[in-house]
Amino acid sequence: MSAIAVTLINGRPGDQVSTRERALHYGDGLFETISCRGGRPRWLALHLQRLRRGCGRLQLPFDDYEELAGEITQLAAWQPCCIVKVIVSRGPATRRGYAPDGTERPTRIVTRHEWPRDAHETGLHVGVSAVRLGANALLAGLKHLNRLEQVLAQLQRPAGIEEVLMLSGAQQVIGGSMSNVFFADAGGLFTPDLRDCGVEGVMRRVVLEAAAASRGAASVPGGALAGGLALTVRPVAAAELAGVREAFMTNVRWGVRSVAMLDGRALPGDDYARQLRRLIEDDDAGT
Amino acid sequence: MSAIAVTLINGRPGDQVSTRERALHYGDGLFETISCRGGRPRWLALHLQRLRRGCGRLQLPFDDYEELAGEITQLAAWQPCCIVKVIVSRGPATRRGYAPDGTERPTRIVTRHEWPRDAHETGLHVGVSAVRLGANALLAGLKHLNRLEQVLAQLQRPAGIEEVLMLSGAQQVIGGSMSNVFFADAGGLFTPDLRDCGVEGVMRRVVLEAAAASRGAASVPGGALAGGLALTVRPVAAAELAGVREAFMTNVRWGVRSVAMLDGRALPGDDYARQLRRLIEDDDAGT
Repeated sequence: MSAIAVTLINGRPGDQVSTRERALHYGDGLFETISCRGGRPRWLALHLQRLRRGCGRLQLPFDDYEELAGEITQLAAWQPCCIVKVIVSRGPATRRGYAPDGTERPTRIVTRHEWPRDAHETGLHVGVSAVRLGANALLAGLKHLNRLEQVLAQLQRPAGIEEVLMLSGAQQVIGGSMSNVFFADAGGLFTPDLRDCGVEGVMRRVVLEAAAASRGAASVPGGALAGGLALTVRPVAAAELAGVREAFMTNVRWGVRSVAMLDGRALPGDDYARQLRRLIEDDDAGT
Repeated sequence: MSAIAVTLINGRPGDQVSTRERALHYGDGLFETISCRGGRPRWLALHLQRLRRGCGRLQLPFDDYEELAGEITQLAAWQPCCIVKVIVSRGPATRRGYAPDGTERPTRIVTRHEWPRDAHETGLHVGVSAVRLGANALLAGLKHLNRLEQVLAQLQRPAGIEEVLMLSGAQQVIGGSMSNVFFADAGGLFTPDLRDCGVEGVMRRVVLEAAAASRGAASVPGGALAGGLALTVRPVAAAELAGVREAFMTNVRWGVRSVAMLDGRALPGDDYARQLRRLIEDDDAGT
Protein backbone atom coordinates (compact mmCIF):
# COMPACT_ATOMS: atom_id res chain seq x y z
CA MET A 1 0.00 0.00 0.00
CA SER A 2 1.32 3.37 -0.95
CA ALA A 3 3.10 5.41 1.67
CA ILE A 4 1.20 8.46 0.49
CA ALA A 5 -2.24 6.93 0.87
CA VAL A 6 -4.37 9.35 2.84
CA THR A 7 -7.72 8.44 4.36
CA LEU A 8 -10.63 10.49 5.65
CA ILE A 9 -13.25 8.75 7.79
CA ASN A 10 -16.44 10.81 7.96
CA GLY A 11 -14.28 13.77 7.05
CA ARG A 12 -11.55 13.26 9.63
CA PRO A 13 -8.08 11.85 8.94
CA GLY A 14 -7.71 8.32 10.29
CA ASP A 15 -6.81 4.80 9.34
CA GLN A 16 -9.00 2.69 11.60
CA VAL A 17 -12.70 1.87 11.81
CA SER A 18 -14.84 0.14 14.40
CA THR A 19 -14.86 -3.66 14.47
CA ARG A 20 -18.65 -3.21 14.50
CA GLU A 21 -18.77 -1.84 10.92
CA ARG A 22 -21.37 -3.74 8.96
CA ALA A 23 -19.14 -3.54 5.89
CA LEU A 24 -16.64 -5.68 7.82
CA HIS A 25 -19.23 -8.23 8.99
CA TYR A 26 -21.44 -8.58 5.91
CA GLY A 27 -19.99 -6.50 3.09
CA ASP A 28 -22.97 -4.27 3.83
CA GLY A 29 -22.10 -1.21 1.78
CA LEU A 30 -20.99 0.21 -1.55
CA PHE A 31 -17.85 1.60 -3.11
CA GLU A 32 -16.65 3.88 -5.88
CA THR A 33 -13.24 4.05 -7.53
CA ILE A 34 -12.65 7.50 -8.96
CA SER A 35 -10.04 8.52 -11.50
CA CYS A 36 -8.51 11.93 -10.73
CA ARG A 37 -6.54 13.78 -13.40
CA GLY A 38 -5.17 17.29 -13.32
CA GLY A 39 -6.04 17.48 -9.62
CA ARG A 40 -9.77 16.90 -10.29
CA PRO A 41 -12.06 13.89 -10.01
CA ARG A 42 -13.45 12.83 -13.39
CA TRP A 43 -17.12 11.93 -13.82
CA LEU A 44 -17.79 12.75 -10.17
CA ALA A 45 -21.49 13.38 -10.81
CA LEU A 46 -21.87 9.92 -12.36
CA HIS A 47 -20.11 8.28 -9.40
CA LEU A 48 -22.35 10.06 -6.92
CA GLN A 49 -25.45 9.17 -8.96
CA ARG A 50 -24.53 5.51 -8.95
CA LEU A 51 -23.80 5.61 -5.21
CA ARG A 52 -27.17 7.22 -4.56
CA ARG A 53 -28.95 4.59 -6.65
CA GLY A 54 -27.11 1.83 -4.76
CA CYS A 55 -27.97 3.29 -1.36
CA GLY A 56 -31.60 3.41 -2.41
CA ARG A 57 -31.62 -0.22 -3.49
CA LEU A 58 -29.90 -1.39 -0.29
CA GLN A 59 -32.05 0.91 1.90
CA LEU A 60 -28.80 2.36 3.18
CA PRO A 61 -29.63 5.77 4.69
CA PHE A 62 -26.56 7.66 3.50
CA ASP A 63 -27.18 11.31 2.80
CA ASP A 64 -23.86 13.14 3.05
CA TYR A 65 -23.24 13.52 -0.68
CA GLU A 66 -22.09 17.12 -0.41
CA GLU A 67 -19.54 16.38 2.29
CA LEU A 68 -18.39 13.33 0.32
CA ALA A 69 -17.97 15.31 -2.90
CA GLY A 70 -15.93 17.89 -0.99
CA GLU A 71 -13.67 15.23 0.49
CA ILE A 72 -13.08 13.56 -2.87
CA THR A 73 -12.25 16.92 -4.46
CA GLN A 74 -9.96 17.82 -1.55
CA LEU A 75 -7.96 14.56 -1.83
CA ALA A 76 -7.80 14.81 -5.64
CA ALA A 77 -6.32 18.31 -5.50
CA TRP A 78 -3.12 17.21 -3.78
CA GLN A 79 -1.68 15.34 -6.77
CA PRO A 80 -1.90 15.63 -10.58
CA CYS A 81 -3.00 12.00 -10.99
CA CYS A 82 -4.44 9.68 -8.38
CA ILE A 83 -7.20 7.22 -7.60
CA VAL A 84 -9.70 8.08 -4.88
CA LYS A 85 -11.62 5.15 -3.46
CA VAL A 86 -14.83 5.66 -1.50
CA ILE A 87 -16.44 3.05 0.76
CA VAL A 88 -19.84 3.73 2.27
CA SER A 89 -20.67 1.21 5.00
CA ARG A 90 -24.12 1.02 6.59
CA GLY A 91 -22.19 1.91 9.72
CA PRO A 92 -21.35 0.29 13.06
CA ALA A 93 -23.87 -2.41 13.95
CA THR A 94 -26.33 -1.34 16.60
CA ARG A 95 -27.09 -4.98 17.42
CA ARG A 96 -25.99 -8.50 16.49
CA GLY A 97 -27.34 -10.14 13.32
CA TYR A 98 -28.06 -9.42 9.68
CA ALA A 99 -31.08 -7.16 10.25
CA PRO A 100 -30.31 -3.45 10.40
CA ASP A 101 -32.55 -1.73 12.95
CA GLY A 102 -32.72 1.48 10.94
CA THR A 103 -30.77 3.59 13.45
CA GLU A 104 -27.36 2.86 11.89
CA ARG A 105 -25.29 5.90 10.93
CA PRO A 106 -23.36 5.23 7.72
CA THR A 107 -19.59 5.55 7.64
CA ARG A 108 -17.80 7.02 4.63
CA ILE A 109 -14.17 6.16 4.06
CA VAL A 110 -12.33 8.14 1.37
CA THR A 111 -8.78 7.14 0.48
CA ARG A 112 -6.35 8.60 -2.03
CA HIS A 113 -4.03 6.13 -3.78
CA GLU A 114 -1.14 6.76 -6.12
CA TRP A 115 -1.93 6.33 -9.80
CA PRO A 116 -0.72 2.79 -10.59
CA ARG A 117 2.55 2.60 -12.42
CA ASP A 118 1.63 -0.39 -14.61
CA ALA A 119 1.81 0.58 -18.26
CA HIS A 120 -1.37 0.00 -20.16
CA GLU A 121 -0.83 1.44 -23.59
CA THR A 122 -0.85 -2.01 -25.17
CA GLY A 123 -3.83 -4.26 -25.82
CA LEU A 124 -5.09 -6.46 -23.01
CA HIS A 125 -4.55 -10.20 -22.84
CA VAL A 126 -7.86 -11.58 -21.62
CA GLY A 127 -8.84 -15.07 -20.50
CA VAL A 128 -12.16 -16.58 -19.44
CA SER A 129 -12.40 -17.25 -15.71
CA ALA A 130 -13.65 -20.59 -14.41
CA VAL A 131 -15.24 -18.63 -11.54
CA ARG A 132 -18.92 -18.02 -12.30
CA LEU A 133 -21.01 -15.08 -11.07
CA GLY A 134 -24.09 -15.92 -9.02
CA ALA A 135 -27.22 -14.28 -10.43
CA ASN A 136 -29.22 -11.95 -8.24
CA ALA A 137 -31.30 -9.22 -9.85
CA LEU A 138 -31.56 -7.35 -6.51
CA LEU A 139 -27.79 -6.84 -6.39
CA ALA A 140 -27.04 -6.72 -10.13
CA GLY A 141 -25.44 -3.52 -11.36
CA LEU A 142 -24.47 -2.30 -7.88
CA LYS A 143 -20.88 -1.66 -6.89
CA HIS A 144 -21.45 -3.33 -3.52
CA LEU A 145 -18.88 -4.79 -1.16
CA ASN A 146 -19.65 -8.50 -1.71
CA ARG A 147 -16.71 -9.24 -3.99
CA LEU A 148 -15.49 -12.74 -3.17
CA GLU A 149 -16.28 -13.92 -6.70
CA GLN A 150 -13.91 -11.27 -8.10
CA VAL A 151 -11.26 -12.14 -5.48
CA LEU A 152 -11.46 -15.82 -6.47
CA ALA A 153 -11.28 -14.92 -10.16
CA GLN A 154 -8.13 -12.91 -9.51
CA LEU A 155 -6.63 -15.69 -7.39
CA GLN A 156 -7.10 -18.08 -10.30
CA ARG A 157 -5.94 -15.66 -13.03
CA PRO A 158 -3.03 -17.21 -14.94
CA ALA A 159 0.27 -15.34 -15.29
CA GLY A 160 0.38 -13.26 -18.48
CA ILE A 161 -3.40 -12.74 -18.43
CA GLU A 162 -4.20 -9.20 -17.33
CA GLU A 163 -7.96 -9.46 -16.99
CA VAL A 164 -10.49 -12.27 -17.00
CA LEU A 165 -13.98 -12.37 -18.44
CA MET A 166 -16.58 -13.68 -16.03
CA LEU A 167 -19.67 -15.64 -17.05
CA SER A 168 -22.90 -16.19 -15.15
CA GLY A 169 -23.93 -19.69 -14.13
CA ALA A 170 -26.17 -19.59 -17.23
CA GLN A 171 -23.07 -19.18 -19.45
CA GLN A 172 -23.75 -15.56 -20.30
CA VAL A 173 -20.78 -13.20 -20.58
CA ILE A 174 -21.14 -10.47 -17.93
CA GLY A 175 -17.88 -8.52 -17.83
CA GLY A 176 -14.32 -8.47 -16.58
CA SER A 177 -13.40 -8.99 -12.93
CA MET A 178 -12.69 -5.26 -12.65
CA SER A 179 -14.08 -3.87 -15.90
CA ASN A 180 -16.99 -3.92 -18.31
CA VAL A 181 -16.64 -5.41 -21.77
CA PHE A 182 -17.79 -4.44 -25.26
CA PHE A 183 -17.65 -6.63 -28.36
CA ALA A 184 -17.98 -6.14 -32.10
CA ASP A 185 -18.82 -8.86 -34.59
CA ALA A 186 -20.28 -8.85 -38.10
CA GLY A 187 -23.54 -7.51 -36.63
CA GLY A 188 -21.99 -4.46 -34.93
CA LEU A 189 -21.08 -3.30 -31.44
CA PHE A 190 -22.71 -4.72 -28.28
CA THR A 191 -22.20 -5.03 -24.54
CA PRO A 192 -23.72 -7.47 -22.02
CA ASP A 193 -27.01 -6.76 -20.35
CA LEU A 194 -26.44 -6.59 -16.55
CA ARG A 195 -29.90 -7.27 -15.18
CA ASP A 196 -28.85 -10.46 -13.39
CA CYS A 197 -25.24 -9.83 -12.39
CA GLY A 198 -22.28 -7.57 -12.95
CA VAL A 199 -21.41 -3.99 -12.11
CA GLU A 200 -22.73 -1.00 -14.04
CA GLY A 201 -19.40 0.75 -14.41
CA VAL A 202 -19.16 4.51 -14.68
CA MET A 203 -16.91 4.14 -17.73
CA ARG A 204 -19.49 1.79 -19.29
CA ARG A 205 -22.08 4.51 -18.85
CA VAL A 206 -19.74 7.11 -20.36
CA VAL A 207 -19.31 4.85 -23.41
CA LEU A 208 -23.06 4.22 -23.74
CA GLU A 209 -23.78 7.94 -23.53
CA ALA A 210 -21.03 8.85 -25.98
CA ALA A 211 -22.41 6.36 -28.49
CA ALA A 212 -25.96 7.63 -28.01
CA ALA A 213 -24.82 11.25 -28.35
CA SER A 214 -22.97 10.41 -31.60
CA ARG A 215 -26.22 9.19 -33.10
CA GLY A 216 -27.95 12.45 -32.25
CA ALA A 217 -25.10 14.70 -33.40
CA ALA A 218 -25.33 16.61 -36.67
CA SER A 219 -21.58 16.38 -37.15
CA VAL A 220 -19.20 14.07 -35.35
CA PRO A 221 -15.55 14.76 -34.48
CA GLY A 222 -13.25 12.97 -36.85
CA GLY A 223 -16.04 12.55 -39.35
CA ALA A 224 -15.79 8.76 -39.24
CA LEU A 225 -19.16 8.23 -37.65
CA ALA A 226 -21.67 9.16 -40.28
CA GLY A 227 -25.01 8.23 -38.70
CA GLY A 228 -23.37 7.72 -35.33
CA LEU A 229 -22.19 4.70 -33.44
CA ALA A 230 -24.85 2.01 -32.94
CA LEU A 231 -24.32 0.11 -29.68
CA THR A 232 -26.68 -2.57 -28.39
CA VAL A 233 -27.09 -3.72 -24.77
CA ARG A 234 -28.19 -7.36 -24.83
CA PRO A 235 -27.52 -10.79 -23.33
CA VAL A 236 -24.26 -12.24 -24.69
CA ALA A 237 -23.82 -16.01 -24.73
CA ALA A 238 -20.33 -17.42 -24.11
CA ALA A 239 -20.58 -19.21 -27.47
CA GLU A 240 -20.60 -15.82 -29.21
CA LEU A 241 -17.00 -15.09 -28.17
CA ALA A 242 -15.73 -17.18 -31.07
CA GLY A 243 -17.28 -14.74 -33.58
CA VAL A 244 -15.96 -11.55 -31.98
CA ARG A 245 -13.73 -9.38 -34.23
CA GLU A 246 -12.98 -6.60 -31.76
CA ALA A 247 -13.31 -6.25 -27.99
CA PHE A 248 -12.49 -3.57 -25.49
CA MET A 249 -12.79 -3.29 -21.75
CA THR A 250 -13.58 -0.24 -19.69
CA ASN A 251 -13.11 1.15 -16.23
CA VAL A 252 -12.35 4.69 -15.10
CA ARG A 253 -8.65 3.93 -14.75
CA TRP A 254 -8.21 2.26 -18.12
CA GLY A 255 -10.73 4.31 -20.04
CA VAL A 256 -11.46 2.37 -23.25
CA ARG A 257 -8.80 -0.32 -23.51
CA SER A 258 -8.56 -2.63 -26.50
CA VAL A 259 -8.29 -6.40 -26.13
CA ALA A 260 -5.37 -7.84 -28.11
CA MET A 261 -5.85 -11.50 -27.14
CA LEU A 262 -9.23 -13.00 -26.22
CA ASP A 263 -9.19 -16.54 -24.85
CA GLY A 264 -6.03 -17.35 -26.82
CA ARG A 265 -7.15 -15.74 -30.08
CA ALA A 266 -5.63 -12.52 -31.49
CA LEU A 267 -8.11 -9.68 -32.15
CA PRO A 268 -6.56 -7.26 -34.60
CA GLY A 269 -9.48 -4.81 -34.76
CA ASP A 270 -9.67 -1.61 -32.72
CA ASP A 271 -11.80 0.72 -34.88
CA TYR A 272 -14.67 1.07 -32.42
CA ALA A 273 -12.32 1.63 -29.47
CA ARG A 274 -10.50 4.40 -31.33
CA GLN A 275 -13.74 6.09 -32.33
CA LEU A 276 -15.05 5.95 -28.79
CA ARG A 277 -11.84 7.30 -27.28
CA ARG A 278 -12.09 10.26 -29.61
CA LEU A 279 -15.76 10.89 -28.74
CA ILE A 280 -15.10 10.65 -25.00
CA GLU A 281 -11.99 12.82 -24.97
CA ASP A 282 -13.80 15.42 -27.01
CA ASP A 283 -16.74 15.38 -24.65
CA ASP A 284 -14.55 15.38 -21.56
CA ALA A 285 -12.58 18.39 -22.76
CA GLY A 286 -15.76 20.41 -22.65
CA THR A 287 -16.79 19.58 -19.07
CA MET B 1 -24.63 -3.42 20.87
CA SER B 2 -24.06 -4.82 24.34
CA ALA B 3 -22.12 -2.71 26.78
CA ILE B 4 -20.27 -5.83 27.87
CA ALA B 5 -19.10 -6.77 24.38
CA VAL B 6 -15.39 -7.50 24.55
CA THR B 7 -13.20 -7.83 21.49
CA LEU B 8 -9.75 -9.31 20.90
CA ILE B 9 -7.94 -8.44 17.66
CA ASN B 10 -5.12 -10.89 16.99
CA GLY B 11 -5.19 -11.60 20.72
CA ARG B 12 -5.10 -8.01 21.94
CA PRO B 13 -8.06 -6.06 23.33
CA GLY B 14 -9.25 -3.41 20.88
CA ASP B 15 -12.26 -2.20 18.98
CA GLN B 16 -10.77 -0.84 15.76
CA VAL B 17 -9.24 -2.36 12.64
CA SER B 18 -7.36 -0.92 9.69
CA THR B 19 -9.35 0.70 6.89
CA ARG B 20 -7.20 -1.53 4.66
CA GLU B 21 -8.83 -4.78 5.92
CA ARG B 22 -9.87 -6.84 2.93
CA ALA B 23 -12.96 -7.95 4.86
CA LEU B 24 -14.08 -4.30 4.80
CA HIS B 25 -13.36 -3.81 1.08
CA TYR B 26 -14.53 -7.11 -0.38
CA GLY B 27 -16.04 -9.25 2.38
CA ASP B 28 -12.84 -11.25 1.92
CA GLY B 29 -13.00 -13.53 4.93
CA LEU B 30 -15.03 -15.95 7.02
CA PHE B 31 -16.89 -15.96 10.30
CA GLU B 32 -18.12 -18.28 13.02
CA THR B 33 -20.84 -17.70 15.60
CA ILE B 34 -20.22 -19.86 18.66
CA SER B 35 -22.69 -20.71 21.39
CA CYS B 36 -21.10 -20.73 24.85
CA ARG B 37 -22.86 -22.38 27.80
CA GLY B 38 -21.59 -23.02 31.29
CA GLY B 39 -18.58 -20.86 30.48
CA ARG B 40 -17.46 -23.12 27.61
CA PRO B 41 -17.76 -22.93 23.82
CA ARG B 42 -19.93 -25.73 22.42
CA TRP B 43 -18.89 -27.66 19.30
CA LEU B 44 -15.65 -25.70 19.15
CA ALA B 45 -13.90 -28.43 17.16
CA LEU B 46 -16.63 -28.34 14.51
CA HIS B 47 -16.40 -24.54 14.23
CA LEU B 48 -12.63 -24.68 13.80
CA GLN B 49 -12.94 -27.49 11.23
CA ARG B 50 -15.38 -25.47 9.17
CA LEU B 51 -13.18 -22.38 9.40
CA ARG B 52 -10.17 -24.40 8.25
CA ARG B 53 -12.12 -25.80 5.32
CA GLY B 54 -13.28 -22.31 4.36
CA CYS B 55 -9.76 -20.88 4.54
CA GLY B 56 -8.58 -23.66 2.27
CA ARG B 57 -11.29 -22.96 -0.30
CA LEU B 58 -10.61 -19.19 -0.29
CA GLN B 59 -6.81 -19.72 -0.26
CA LEU B 60 -6.78 -17.61 2.89
CA PRO B 61 -3.49 -18.38 4.67
CA PHE B 62 -4.80 -18.35 8.25
CA ASP B 63 -2.99 -20.70 10.58
CA ASP B 64 -3.48 -19.47 14.15
CA TYR B 65 -6.09 -22.03 15.17
CA GLU B 66 -4.53 -22.70 18.57
CA GLU B 67 -4.39 -19.03 19.47
CA LEU B 68 -7.94 -18.57 18.21
CA ALA B 69 -9.25 -21.53 20.24
CA GLY B 70 -7.57 -20.08 23.33
CA GLU B 71 -9.15 -16.67 22.78
CA ILE B 72 -12.62 -18.13 22.25
CA THR B 73 -12.27 -20.21 25.40
CA GLN B 74 -10.98 -17.23 27.35
CA LEU B 75 -13.92 -15.01 26.36
CA ALA B 76 -16.44 -17.80 26.98
CA ALA B 77 -15.18 -18.34 30.53
CA TRP B 78 -16.22 -14.91 31.75
CA GLN B 79 -19.97 -15.54 31.62
CA PRO B 80 -22.26 -18.57 32.02
CA CYS B 81 -23.97 -17.96 28.65
CA CYS B 82 -22.76 -15.87 25.75
CA ILE B 83 -22.18 -15.78 22.00
CA VAL B 84 -18.63 -15.51 20.71
CA LYS B 85 -18.31 -14.29 17.13
CA VAL B 86 -15.11 -14.82 15.18
CA ILE B 87 -14.20 -12.96 11.98
CA VAL B 88 -11.11 -13.99 10.02
CA SER B 89 -10.23 -11.39 7.37
CA ARG B 90 -7.55 -12.01 4.77
CA GLY B 91 -5.91 -9.03 6.45
CA PRO B 92 -4.95 -5.49 5.52
CA ALA B 93 -4.54 -5.09 1.75
CA THR B 94 -0.94 -4.93 0.65
CA ARG B 95 -1.99 -3.25 -2.61
CA ARG B 96 -5.09 -1.90 -4.34
CA GLY B 97 -7.44 -4.26 -6.17
CA TYR B 98 -9.15 -7.63 -5.81
CA ALA B 99 -6.03 -9.77 -6.26
CA PRO B 100 -4.29 -10.78 -3.03
CA ASP B 101 -0.53 -10.84 -3.51
CA GLY B 102 -0.05 -13.72 -1.10
CA THR B 103 1.82 -11.70 1.53
CA GLU B 104 -1.34 -10.68 3.45
CA ARG B 105 -1.37 -11.48 7.16
CA PRO B 106 -4.87 -12.51 8.24
CA THR B 107 -6.62 -10.65 11.04
CA ARG B 108 -8.74 -12.51 13.61
CA ILE B 109 -11.41 -10.60 15.48
CA VAL B 110 -13.06 -12.38 18.41
CA THR B 111 -15.99 -10.68 20.16
CA ARG B 112 -18.10 -11.81 23.09
CA HIS B 113 -21.78 -10.83 23.02
CA GLU B 114 -24.46 -11.22 25.63
CA TRP B 115 -26.78 -14.17 25.14
CA PRO B 116 -29.83 -12.65 23.42
CA ARG B 117 -32.83 -12.12 25.65
CA ASP B 118 -35.46 -13.01 23.04
CA ALA B 119 -37.49 -15.98 24.20
CA HIS B 120 -37.49 -18.88 21.80
CA GLU B 121 -39.30 -21.67 23.52
CA THR B 122 -42.23 -21.41 21.14
CA GLY B 123 -42.43 -22.55 17.52
CA LEU B 124 -41.08 -20.28 14.80
CA HIS B 125 -43.28 -18.34 12.43
CA VAL B 126 -41.54 -18.65 9.07
CA GLY B 127 -42.20 -16.93 5.75
CA VAL B 128 -40.65 -17.34 2.30
CA SER B 129 -38.38 -14.46 1.32
CA ALA B 130 -38.68 -12.80 -2.08
CA VAL B 131 -34.88 -12.38 -1.98
CA ARG B 132 -33.25 -15.19 -3.94
CA LEU B 133 -29.76 -16.63 -3.33
CA GLY B 134 -27.29 -16.46 -6.20
CA ALA B 135 -25.80 -19.87 -6.99
CA ASN B 136 -22.05 -20.31 -6.84
CA ALA B 137 -20.61 -23.74 -6.10
CA LEU B 138 -17.22 -22.21 -5.22
CA LEU B 139 -18.74 -20.29 -2.31
CA ALA B 140 -21.57 -22.66 -1.37
CA GLY B 141 -21.44 -24.02 2.15
CA LEU B 142 -18.94 -21.44 3.38
CA LYS B 143 -19.72 -19.04 6.20
CA HIS B 144 -18.07 -16.20 4.29
CA LEU B 145 -18.54 -12.47 4.76
CA ASN B 146 -20.54 -11.74 1.57
CA ARG B 147 -23.95 -11.51 3.21
CA LEU B 148 -25.91 -8.81 1.41
CA GLU B 149 -28.54 -11.33 0.34
CA GLN B 150 -29.21 -12.16 3.99
CA VAL B 151 -29.24 -8.45 4.92
CA LEU B 152 -31.81 -7.76 2.18
CA ALA B 153 -33.91 -10.75 3.29
CA GLN B 154 -33.94 -9.39 6.84
CA LEU B 155 -34.77 -5.87 5.62
CA GLN B 156 -37.81 -7.28 3.82
CA ARG B 157 -38.89 -9.65 6.61
CA PRO B 158 -42.49 -8.83 7.61
CA ALA B 159 -43.37 -8.05 11.25
CA GLY B 160 -44.44 -11.17 13.12
CA ILE B 161 -42.25 -13.41 10.95
CA GLU B 162 -39.18 -14.52 12.91
CA GLU B 163 -37.22 -16.19 10.14
CA VAL B 164 -37.50 -16.42 6.37
CA LEU B 165 -36.79 -19.33 4.06
CA MET B 166 -34.55 -18.44 1.14
CA LEU B 167 -34.76 -20.06 -2.29
CA SER B 168 -32.19 -20.19 -5.06
CA GLY B 169 -32.88 -18.56 -8.41
CA ALA B 170 -33.82 -22.07 -9.58
CA GLN B 171 -36.64 -22.19 -6.96
CA GLN B 172 -34.89 -24.67 -4.71
CA VAL B 173 -35.28 -24.25 -0.95
CA ILE B 174 -31.85 -23.62 0.58
CA GLY B 175 -32.33 -22.59 4.20
CA GLY B 176 -33.23 -19.75 6.53
CA SER B 177 -31.52 -16.37 6.43
CA MET B 178 -29.66 -17.33 9.63
CA SER B 179 -30.40 -21.02 9.99
CA ASN B 180 -30.60 -24.35 8.22
CA VAL B 181 -33.91 -26.08 7.67
CA PHE B 182 -35.17 -29.65 7.91
CA PHE B 183 -38.52 -30.94 6.70
CA ALA B 184 -40.62 -34.06 7.15
CA ASP B 185 -43.35 -35.24 4.82
CA ALA B 186 -44.98 -38.59 4.14
CA GLY B 187 -41.63 -39.84 2.80
CA GLY B 188 -39.62 -39.00 5.92
CA LEU B 189 -37.07 -36.45 7.07
CA PHE B 190 -34.92 -34.42 4.65
CA THR B 191 -32.81 -31.28 4.42
CA PRO B 192 -31.67 -29.24 1.39
CA ASP B 193 -28.52 -30.10 -0.47
CA LEU B 194 -26.15 -27.10 -0.28
CA ARG B 195 -23.88 -27.70 -3.25
CA ASP B 196 -24.92 -24.48 -5.05
CA CYS B 197 -25.69 -22.07 -2.23
CA GLY B 198 -26.33 -21.79 1.48
CA VAL B 199 -24.24 -22.18 4.61
CA GLU B 200 -23.28 -25.54 6.08
CA GLY B 201 -24.23 -24.73 9.64
CA VAL B 202 -22.47 -26.35 12.57
CA MET B 203 -25.87 -27.22 14.10
CA ARG B 204 -26.91 -28.78 10.78
CA ARG B 205 -23.86 -30.99 10.98
CA VAL B 206 -24.62 -31.90 14.61
CA VAL B 207 -28.13 -32.96 13.52
CA LEU B 208 -26.82 -34.97 10.55
CA GLU B 209 -24.30 -36.73 12.77
CA ALA B 210 -26.84 -37.41 15.51
CA ALA B 211 -29.20 -38.96 12.96
CA ALA B 212 -26.40 -41.07 11.47
CA ALA B 213 -25.25 -42.21 14.91
CA SER B 214 -28.81 -43.21 15.85
CA ARG B 215 -28.87 -45.59 12.91
CA GLY B 216 -25.68 -47.25 14.06
CA ALA B 217 -26.66 -47.51 17.73
CA ALA B 218 -27.75 -50.79 19.25
CA SER B 219 -30.08 -48.97 21.63
CA VAL B 220 -31.28 -45.43 21.42
CA PRO B 221 -32.11 -43.11 24.32
CA GLY B 222 -35.84 -42.82 24.79
CA GLY B 223 -36.42 -46.01 22.86
CA ALA B 224 -38.48 -44.21 20.22
CA LEU B 225 -36.04 -44.68 17.38
CA ALA B 226 -36.04 -48.37 16.61
CA GLY B 227 -33.80 -48.62 13.53
CA GLY B 228 -32.64 -45.06 13.98
CA LEU B 229 -33.55 -41.80 12.35
CA ALA B 230 -33.34 -41.77 8.53
CA LEU B 231 -32.43 -38.31 7.23
CA THR B 232 -31.83 -37.52 3.56
CA VAL B 233 -29.82 -34.64 2.10
CA ARG B 234 -31.28 -33.77 -1.29
CA PRO B 235 -32.48 -30.89 -3.50
CA VAL B 236 -35.80 -29.54 -2.21
CA ALA B 237 -38.10 -27.78 -4.67
CA ALA B 238 -40.18 -24.85 -3.40
CA ALA B 239 -43.29 -26.69 -4.58
CA GLU B 240 -42.62 -29.38 -1.97
CA LEU B 241 -43.29 -26.97 0.90
CA ALA B 242 -47.04 -27.53 0.49
CA GLY B 243 -46.65 -31.21 1.46
CA VAL B 244 -44.48 -30.65 4.54
CA ARG B 245 -45.92 -31.98 7.83
CA GLU B 246 -43.13 -30.91 10.15
CA ALA B 247 -40.23 -28.47 9.86
CA PHE B 248 -37.50 -27.30 12.13
CA MET B 249 -34.67 -24.83 11.80
CA THR B 250 -31.23 -25.02 13.33
CA ASN B 251 -28.38 -22.81 14.35
CA VAL B 252 -26.07 -23.02 17.35
CA ARG B 253 -28.08 -20.44 19.27
CA TRP B 254 -31.50 -21.99 18.65
CA GLY B 255 -30.40 -25.62 18.60
CA VAL B 256 -33.26 -27.54 16.97
CA ARG B 257 -36.24 -25.19 16.84
CA SER B 258 -39.64 -26.30 15.57
CA VAL B 259 -41.56 -24.33 12.96
CA ALA B 260 -45.13 -23.60 14.07
CA MET B 261 -46.23 -21.66 10.98
CA LEU B 262 -44.73 -22.18 7.52
CA ASP B 263 -45.75 -19.69 4.83
CA GLY B 264 -49.10 -19.10 6.54
CA ARG B 265 -49.87 -22.76 7.26
CA ALA B 266 -49.82 -24.28 10.78
CA LEU B 267 -47.50 -27.28 11.22
CA PRO B 268 -48.61 -29.24 14.24
CA GLY B 269 -45.93 -31.97 14.09
CA ASP B 270 -42.72 -31.88 16.15
CA ASP B 271 -41.85 -35.57 16.60
CA TYR B 272 -38.57 -35.46 14.70
CA ALA B 273 -37.44 -32.26 16.40
CA ARG B 274 -38.10 -33.76 19.85
CA GLN B 275 -36.24 -36.97 18.99
CA LEU B 276 -33.27 -35.01 17.67
CA ARG B 277 -33.12 -32.72 20.69
CA ARG B 278 -32.97 -35.80 22.91
CA LEU B 279 -30.21 -37.41 20.80
CA ILE B 280 -28.13 -34.23 20.74
CA GLU B 281 -28.49 -33.40 24.44
CA ASP B 282 -27.58 -36.95 25.31
CA ASP B 283 -24.51 -36.81 23.10
CA ASP B 284 -23.51 -33.36 24.31
CA ALA B 285 -23.72 -34.42 27.97
CA GLY B 286 -20.94 -36.89 27.31
CA THR B 287 -18.51 -34.47 25.65
